[in-house]
Amino acid sequence: MQTVKIGLLGCGTVGSGVARLLTEKVNEYARRSGYRLELSKILVRDRDRSRPAGIDPDLFTTDPAEILEDEEIQIIVEVMGGIDPAREYLLQAIGSGKHVVTANKALIARHGQELFEAASENEVSLYIEASVAGGLPIIQTLKRSLVANQLLSLHGIINGTTNYILSAMTDEGREFQEVLAEAQAKGYAEADPTDDIEGYDAVYKLAILSSLVFEQPIQLKQIHRVGISRIASQDIAYAKQFGYVIKLLAIAKQENGHFQARVSPTMIPVDHPLASVNGVYNAILIKGDAAGDIMFYGQGAGSMPTASAVVSDIINIATELENPPNTLMASNHLGDPVNLGPPDSVVNRYYVRVLTEDKSGVLGQIGTLLGREDISVHTLLQRKADPGNAELVFITHPVSDQKLRQAIAQIRQLETTQEIYSIIRVEDFVE
Amino acid sequence: MQTVKIGLLGCGTVGSGVARLLTEKVNEYARRSGYRLELSKILVRDRDRSRPAGIDPDLFTTDPAEILEDEEIQIIVEVMGGIDPAREYLLQAIGSGKHVVTANKALIARHGQELFEAASENEVSLYIEASVAGGLPIIQTLKRSLVANQLLSLHGIINGTTNYILSAMTDEGREFQEVLAEAQAKGYAEADPTDDIEGYDAVYKLAILSSLVFEQPIQLKQIHRVGISRIASQDIAYAKQFGYVIKLLAIAKQENGHFQARVSPTMIPVDHPLASVNGVYNAILIKGDAAGDIMFYGQGAGSMPTASAVVSDIINIATELENPPNTLMASNHLGDPVNLGPPDSVVNRYYVRVLTEDKSGVLGQIGTLLGREDISVHTLLQRKADPGNAELVFITHPVSDQKLRQAIAQIRQLETTQEIYSIIRVEDFVE
Repeated sequence: MQTVKIGLLGCGTVGSGVARLLTEKVNEYARRSGYRLELSKILVRDRDRSRPAGIDPDLFTTDPAEILEDEEIQIIVEVMGGIDPAREYLLQAIGSGKHVVTANKALIARHGQELFEAASENEVSLYIEASVAGGLPIIQTLKRSLVANQLLSLHGIINGTTNYILSAMTDEGREFQEVLAEAQAKGYAEADPTDDIEGYDAVYKLAILSSLVFEQPIQLKQIHRVGISRIASQDIAYAKQFGYVIKLLAIAKQENGHFQARVSPTMIPVDHPLASVNGVYNAILIKGDAAGDIMFYGQGAGSMPTASAVVSDIINIATELENPPNTLMASNHLGDPVNLGPPDSVVNRYYVRVLTEDKSGVLGQIGTLLGREDISVHTLLQRKADPGNAELVFITHPVSDQKLRQAIAQIRQLETTQEIYSIIRVEDFVE
Repeated sequence: MQTVKIGLLGCGTVGSGVARLLTEKVNEYARRSGYRLELSKILVRDRDRSRPAGIDPDLFTTDPAEILEDEEIQIIVEVMGGIDPAREYLLQAIGSGKHVVTANKALIARHGQELFEAASENEVSLYIEASVAGGLPIIQTLKRSLVANQLLSLHGIINGTTNYILSAMTDEGREFQEVLAEAQAKGYAEADPTDDIEGYDAVYKLAILSSLVFEQPIQLKQIHRVGISRIASQDIAYAKQFGYVIKLLAIAKQENGHFQARVSPTMIPVDHPLASVNGVYNAILIKGDAAGDIMFYGQGAGSMPTASAVVSDIINIATELENPPNTLMASNHLGDPVNLGPPDSVVNRYYVRVLTEDKSGVLGQIGTLLGREDISVHTLLQRKADPGNAELVFITHPVSDQKLRQAIAQIRQLETTQEIYSIIRVEDFVE
């Protein structure tokens, strides 16, 4: 049996999971791939840092050249994260004809096109299953198992931290800051939680998924992004009253020939399958024109689920070593970025919560203003708030983002308007 | 651009979906596969039968030799169903070096080993994604995306008809026969519904899935099978009271080194993700030792979802035409059948409902008898039934199937026992 040598860049949470699988399951993987997969070197910053048991300390090196210039190494696995130096290491590896597996979502979202172009030119494979939603096998599924479909839409809960926070706020009626602090204490949120709670992490993942849905690259700046830090328990309570739950939803869809891609808190019907995805779990719902709706549900992160995706990619590359590389995988990341329609081509329903003075005529004023902008209101609710004020909550019929922004600007200027608390998208999943 | 010619055997529900996709999306598929995929002939029984619009009537032939002996046809797609003559047609196609895609679950479940052996010998691909759960991409996922895992268990709702019936019984408190008649009227159940309601259809699919989970073939007779025709609305009501719903569950799992494979009505906790899979939808939950729990949810049947799986297989074969065939796909269907442990190696919790005479001492008698068999009871409920009788319902702690059978036989022999209504497995999904 031939041996395939593997070089691992990084040995943190995911890297040590990869090392563990490759070490413990060498016989299992030999049976399945036809090769002895040998983890031959691991790049670390500090050789002396303590590592999980079972990883041979002789594999560690702090010199990237020892791995990247080793001609016997055929597959490079990058799990170090960050853009630099990961990007240059991978370009070097690809340039020397090595196949590459990466779990680095920021790198692929930002430099996917450059890396896939290099992989195409050098006729090597670049596999990225672990870069999105850890253990959920979504990349291969979109590229291979649903290849007969035009993909009409993708709706995903793809950030575990925000889903944990929103689930706890929903179940326990608590406020954002309190639940965030708890999530940080439990290790579900980072000390600096910005990447997760402001939606940047989900935007990286959605950029990668969008390129597969749209069959064209997308640029990060093309993705509309709103985080969850301004969601109040009061919004969640109103959502419940109207039959919705609030999720941070990543959406890529084609409608009337227009593309849209966004990450934002979204009200979804309480009986929709995505509504019951709670805690740190991830789920992705795909609509194909032939396959219909398909949902995937599982652990989106964590050492072993992500390592499972990385090592499955390694085994798939091994079984394909004698074949030309899978060009299907690269094609969607190459070429011109997708053309998102004009801003008023996207229509959505919206939930808006406003604090106004509690005077007669205010409701009429806002009603008239919305009517003038041609925005029709589906549900409206007015409640006494602190003395002298009233809380006004309404859900619109579908309206373009642009029109809604104009109306909101006008409401903000009314003398009676105290504060605009929230504007949250509503998704009814109705065709 | 090179053309790949495709021969279609059968033009029923799935076949006409395949013909429609290949005809309408020829440019889309050329872009994705690198080949012009040309549907060149379709085998039908009756040329004159009316077919959906958009299929060129010149493609029809009633002579299998016109397709199987056409040297220009590289891929044969079998969607005719049944064992004979599908089996011999595919063996002939494989023998002449053609690649094969089939949606025929009965054929693969019964003759998968013979067909995969022939495919291996002739170095052609045999792809079977559509044979299980229509549009749900489960075969490729198990074989490729989860290949780094040891698969510990699979729990599936893989028959839409029975799930529709059980969902309606649960939601509306109606009896089996009434809901079945309605399902037949709506076209969700066949005129002869035996295959679905007695679990045969699910057993075929589970046989195919089990071979992937266990990495060894399984014989149909090794799969324990119980249908849903004896489930009463009363059982569903008790299940609800105890916090469960009843689903026809297909299960393949390894526990303490022992394999088990079964299709049977099963009580599952009402808050488990599988519990909310209703109507004709299918869902499959996989546990991998690294990836953890992953669930797939979607339309398990229907013309276009199944055609989506068939055509995705065709496109994948096209992209691999210049490569050696994927031996990974065959391996699990070859070799000796799996060795299921001794009957008492499998333990489960059970729900039992018995009609007894309403006399003092009956409860003690049954309690003593269960105790003697070392079966401990988790929950017990006694209710007055028709005059002079009482209904006794209990849920056991885990017990081997063998021991439970012995206890049931003894309960049946008690003078006070009028009838044993139901014995239903309980799955708590607790490790």
